[in-house]
This record gives sequence, structure tokens and C-alpha cells, in this order.
Amino acid sequence: MKEFKVIDRFFAGRGQPRRDVELSVGDDCALVNPAENKSIAITCDTLVENVHFFPDMPAKALGYKAIAVNLSDLASMGAEPAWMTLAITLPEIDETWLDEFSASLSETAEYYGVALVGGDTTRGPKSITITINGQVPKGKALTRCGAKNGDWIYVTGTLGDSALGLDVLRSKQTVADDAATYFIQRHYYPTPRVLAGQALRSLASSAIDLSDGLVSDLGHVLKRSEVGAIVDVTALPLSDAMRTSVDTDTALGYALTGGEDYELLFTVPESQRGALEIALAHAGVSFARIGQISTGNKLRLNKDGEPYNPTNFGFEHFSS
Amino acid sequence: MKEFKVIDRFFAGRGQPRRDVELSVGDDCALVNPAENKSIAITCDTLVENVHFFPDMPAKALGYKAIAVNLSDLASMGAEPAWMTLAITLPEIDETWLDEFSASLSETAEYYGVALVGGDTTRGPKSITITINGQVPKGKALTRCGAKNGDWIYVTGTLGDSALGLDVLRSKQTVADDAATYFIQRHYYPTPRVLAGQALRSLASSAIDLSDGLVSDLGHVLKRSEVGAIVDVTALPLSDAMRTSVDTDTALGYALTGGEDYELLFTVPESQRGALEIALAHAGVSFARIGQISTGNKLRLNKDGEPYNPTNFGFEHFSS
Repeated sequence: MKEFKVIDRFFAGRGQPRRDVELSVGDDCALVNPAENKSIAITCDTLVENVHFFPDMPAKALGYKAIAVNLSDLASMGAEPAWMTLAITLPEIDETWLDEFSASLSETAEYYGVALVGGDTTRGPKSITITINGQVPKGKALTRCGAKNGDWIYVTGTLGDSALGLDVLRSKQTVADDAATYFIQRHYYPTPRVLAGQALRSLASSAIDLSDGLVSDLGHVLKRSEVGAIVDVTALPLSDAMRTSVDTDTALGYALTGGEDYELLFTVPESQRGALEIALAHAGVSFARIGQISTGNKLRLNKDGEPYNPTNFGFEHFSS
Repeated sequence: MKEFKVIDRFFAGRGQPRRDVELSVGDDCALVNPAENKSIAITCDTLVENVHFFPDMPAKALGYKAIAVNLSDLASMGAEPAWMTLAITLPEIDETWLDEFSASLSETAEYYGVALVGGDTTRGPKSITITINGQVPKGKALTRCGAKNGDWIYVTGTLGDSALGLDVLRSKQTVADDAATYFIQRHYYPTPRVLAGQALRSLASSAIDLSDGLVSDLGHVLKRSEVGAIVDVTALPLSDAMRTSVDTDTALGYALTGGEDYELLFTVPESQRGALEIALAHAGVSFARIGQISTGNKLRLNKDGEPYNPTNFGFEHFSS
């Protein structure tokens, strides 16, 4: 099967049909017509086999997650997803695999309103690069730069589940069957907080998505905003499955340093706190206030009013 | 060296600074502000080591060509290049290689007015995916669809040099040293016809860039436009180096089926022929009229008034 046959059969015309797409897959470029008074947000992520995913990852999960990680980046800017390109490199044409992968990719794109407008199919070691363009009203995008001393720090959802799911998959943790299913689901099918991100516009002072882990990603916000922070680890939102599957220090380790949760972390000035909590409740997403921005440039962790030292629970292990 | 260090050191802030870039490398997404009344043209190409390039390809050439192949797609639509993302996968951090690659990439991006606004650096088998967004006045983009019976067929530049260059590099052809240098240069540093493409707007009825070879790419235009064509092979533009290095049938083989010339092929109605030739002369690019669109759906090749049969010169060999 030639390259253009693969595109035609598995990818052409997939995702959400959009009226702003003038020309889709099949020419040298796609043509799209952006809305007026909007900026375009552009994000790009690559998933490489044996680096970002293992060969046993189901095609359905990979088709989902390859889009979700990009949608999460758009969510953290408050942007609405619009148009995507898919560059997929495959060692061979496995039609069963491609059927599952493309069906999942298409369904996910359609659900989030994204049109697949172009791409490139090549032969080589398995790898997927997705670039998504979103739109955000001019001047309303959220960035990592605006956190101010005194702002409250929030996260959506629960933390650490994805990393524990990976450890379950790799037999590094043993948990009950129901919990294992839950954690693996969270690892394979993270929910990009697209609507929550849009609800944060004009309310949050900064935002980022949690791809590398709370400590690392909050660190990016602190560095770019030139501030410090105090986080109360007892306020970190943990799933019931997490609480019942591992001891507290292990759970906090996952919550603080486990990657790939794809929840949002954001900061809010006191003046916007009420409006923000209402907006997020409307968006139907759970959230937790976990700390406060401070002066300086350090992240301090507290537990029951005492400094909490991450080395207690094997920080190095989790941050790898 | 960590991923973000690689981006910061080699790629952040590279390419052309553009006032329409609100936020570049360093946040979850880039933010750009498109011009009013323009469509966005999106193109994406992947180059995989041992598939699209060999390990001995100089980093400088790869940094250039990875952009050029995308610019060529934009050129064929008549779009102006604007913003790019780079997804690069590398087996190891080779700073000398990255210095050369990123310098060449940056210089090329700057020359063509493209800002590098984001990307992803990952570990794995060497591969480069570049996505470039361009802008084109609404309704003015050139596509593969508009060729009509009677339209003249043109190409820019000379044909077949890149494929011969590849054969010289792989020791499948032996030519004089000067000619070898010229062909290899054409293979490693194809010129994307960006200005020529813009000059064709409102004049050409269809356009495509020559990435797979004349016969194959003209075939795409014929299929999408639902027409046929007659090409006079004696009119195919050949470089002096090509004429003096190989016999006529071999030269025609390269010109008809050799890939990666990245010249433009386009069709023009008789009424626009004069205006078009003036516009292209202003753009400073050579061009040749090689045939005419016909009814039916076949491509016919003529030489001195007789049908020309490509099997004579090993069509299969060249089309592989």
C-alpha cells in the first residue's frame, strides 16, 4: 500500500468537519480560515515508541493520547482546538493496527472539534507527531508568566494516577484489579481540560498543564513568573483508588512528581477566586486549592504546618 | 543535556523575528496573530534517516532541506511562509551536529521570513518533522484542481538534477567532478520557488511542486482536475550539466521521473500566458512551457511528433 493510499484510506476527511476548512487532505497544503480577532495557538508533540510509549500500548489508546497531549497544551492557554496535522512514521503497513489507531484518533478529534487537515505518512521506526492549531481571543491567552505574590494555586482533577498506572503496567506496583484498571485508564486516556482552560480566561493569572509532574511544572511557572510558592501537600487532590492502594508518602510522591496527568495547574488572584470557582463548577471539572504564590524563587512544601522533605519518599525515583 | 536545554540552546528564538508572533518557544503553545483577509496554508513533512536521507548527509544540508521541502509546498499554493514548528528526534545529543543543523535551519528560516515558534525535542531514531503555516489572500490560493482543457503546462528551473545528484552520491552514476558538485548541490539544497508561487496567484489555473517526479506529480493534477495532458519531452528544461553528463534518453528519464527537484509545475490559460511570463520574469526564475492540458484522463508523451515510450529508458528504475 503506497503512502497516499494510507492517507486516503485511514486519515483523509477524518476528525470534525469544520466550515473554516477550505481545503483539507489531498493538496500540497491545507487551507483554513481563522476567525477575526483571534490569535492562533500552535502546539506540537512527538510520541516515539520505546521512549514515550511501549510496543504493547493499544492502538486505540495511542490514537487517543497522541491528540490528548496536544489538546492539553491548548487547554492550558485557554484556546479552542481547531485544525491538526498528523505525521506518522510506521515500520510497516499493519491494517488492523491502522484501523484501530485511526478510528480512535478520528473519534477523539471529532469530540474535541478538531479537523484533521493534513499530514505525512512515512516508513521508519514508529513515531507520531501531531501539531494542533487552536484559536483564542486576542489578548486572552493564559501563559506561564503572570503569577503574582499572594495568588492562589489550583489544580484540576486528581494527581499521580497516570504515573501509578504506568508503574502498574510495568509491574513496579501491585494494586487491586479494580484500581489497576482505573490507573491504567488514567495513564492511557488522560482527559485534556479543554473547557476548563477556556473557563479560566480573564480569571487565572497563569496556567500550565501537568505533563512532567507538579513539582517540575509548577517550577516552570515560578521561573517564568519570577516568584516562589508554598504548597500544602495535604491539600493535593488524590483519587480514592490512590488513597486505598498505596501509603500516604508514596501517594504524595506520585502526586508531586508523577508525570502525564494532563490536569491543569493555574494561579488566581484573591479578587477572582469566587468567579473562578463558579466558572470551573460550570465547566464540570473538580478542582483543589493547593497553595499560594510567594516572593522569592523557591518552591516550599508543607505538611501539617511543617516543611515536607520529598527525599523521604524517593524523590529521585519518581522524577526520573 | 535535558530536552528544554536543547531547545533553549539550539532553537529558541531562531528564524525570522516577526511582529505577528506574540509568544514563541517556551510556553505550552506559541501564539501568533494572522493577518486579516488571509487564509492559513498548513503543510507538514517528515524526513526519516535511512528513508529520506542517509547518515552521511551533512547536518547543514539537512537543516536546509527540512525547511525547503515544506516551503516548496507553500510555494505551490502561492502562500507566504510565516510560522514553523520543529519536532526533532535524535538518538543522542551531538552538540557539533546540532550546532551545524540549527545554524542552517535558522539561516534558512530567516531568509524566507519564517519564525520558529515551537516544537518538541525527543530521543529516538533520527527524524525531523516540520510543520509550516503560511498566509495567502483569501480565495487566491493555487491548488491541483483547476487545470482546464487547452491550458498550457509550465515548469520552473531544470528537471532531474536532484535525482541524478542522489545517484552520484550513491555511486550509481559517474560524472565529471564539476557536474557531480552541481548535481549534489541540487539534491541537498533544492530552491523552493516561494516568490514564483506568489507571482502565479490569479494567473495559473493549477499548481503543484515536483517532489515525486514530473510524471507522478502531473498525474496528481490531472486526476484532481479531471483532465489529460500532452507533454513534449523535447521541451523539458535540462541543465547544461545534465546534457553533457548523460545521454538524451537517460536525461529524459531523470527529467520525467526523478524526484525532489522541488520546482513548480503549473497550468495557465491562453488568456493569462503573457501576463504570467512577465510576472515570472520579474520573480527572477527560469521557466519552460512543456505541454498542454487535453480532454480525457491520460498523460501522453511526445517526442518530435511521435509518441515517446518511457519503458525505453527504464521507467521502472527511475520511478522506484
